[in-house]
Amino acid sequence: MEEKPMIEERRERADAARNRRAILRATEELLARHRPEQISMEQVAAAAGVGKGTVFHRFGSRMGLMVALMQERAYALEEAVASAPPPLGPGAPPEERLMAFLDAIVDVVGRNKGLLAALGHAATAAPRPEWKEQGERRGEDGDHPVYRFWHSHTSALIVARRPDLDGELLAHILLGSLQSEPVLRLLERGEATRLAASLRVMASGMLAAPALA
Amino acid sequence: MEEKPMIEERRERADAARNRRAILRATEELLARHRPEQISMEQVAAAAGVGKGTVFHRFGSRMGLMVALMQERAYALEEAVASAPPPLGPGAPPEERLMAFLDAIVDVVGRNKGLLAALGHAATAAPRPEWKEQGERRGEDGDHPVYRFWHSHTSALIVARRPDLDGELLAHILLGSLQSEPVLRLLERGEATRLAASLRVMASGMLAAPALA
Repeated sequence: MEEKPMIEERRERADAARNRRAILRATEELLARHRPEQISMEQVAAAAGVGKGTVFHRFGSRMGLMVALMQERAYALEEAVASAPPPLGPGAPPEERLMAFLDAIVDVVGRNKGLLAALGHAATAAPRPEWKEQGERRGEDGDHPVYRFWHSHTSALIVARRPDLDGELLAHILLGSLQSEPVLRLLERGEATRLAASLRVMASGMLAAPALA
Repeated sequence: MEEKPMIEERRERADAARNRRAILRATEELLARHRPEQISMEQVAAAAGVGKGTVFHRFGSRMGLMVALMQERAYALEEAVASAPPPLGPGAPPEERLMAFLDAIVDVVGRNKGLLAALGHAATAAPRPEWKEQGERRGEDGDHPVYRFWHSHTSALIVARRPDLDGELLAHILLGSLQSEPVLRLLERGEATRLAASLRVMASGMLAAPALA
């Protein structure tokens, strides 16, 4: 094998990183206006100014691309939960943290029409090769890691404030609504603020609900 | 065309009605243990003690069969809402009626694993011929009539008690959770009672939530 001069190698790595960022940014922009299944790899390549082969080479498939994008966002949100200033980060009371977290989730989902639902379906369908390529691990019950983190944090905040409630299930009910068609249609109409407000009503009401008999 | 003797005609009609009931009952029993997509027309026919052709002739397809079953239940629930004793029927305060209605819905969905989700997907996919055969009408936003009734009743009860809240969206959030995978898996494990309890917490908390700023 031919050795490449160091400077060329470095430039190639910089090109690859720039392409990756451009592709993810282009995907994000397309997702603001379309559902994942309406977006082709060709469109992404054209919008990112790279060849179609580059997109396939880096991400394997449309689903691989969506997973990579969602994961990038999810990592950012996970980091914010661990170390950002309150109320999203540590240090605020559980109810305030829950409200901030729900707002953050609606923001992610609102900018990715139908992405959560697509991931949910993919997670419950037969395992796909491209998921393995992405190094994805699924929970015992088939949940996607992103959903798992969202659920475990939501659930933990509910229990911190109300140990008498079924935090695990209540978190599924709150988050599950983000996968339903009527709610996705609402997000497509750009009504993320309206959704966030009603999720806050649900969550704050639930935390103040009378103790179970 | 040959005229049939009246008595024979009447017997044929009675046979048809009995077959229809037997088929729907067999489907219901199968749905208690399986998801709609796991049930074949052959299984239904065998369990109902009729020929496979009879099932196809009456219902057109598996989806036609599911729709007919769901509709039968939905009509029964709609009638109960209109004329059964309170709290499901008229005469009780909105919050009590909402709790009773959510219990009734969980009961229907719990005995029909994944049926609501299947109907939801069907409603948003391209229109299927068998839906037309069944005389289905869809709302402007593609909702199934069953979902539309559930949503409009839930929404009306929320608004009756809390006109300041976004009843339309809150009803979607409450009902949307019934279509999410983690909640469906819970129902498959037979935890309908647990689900009903947590939906009650959500709904009662929401109705008692502080007024929006």
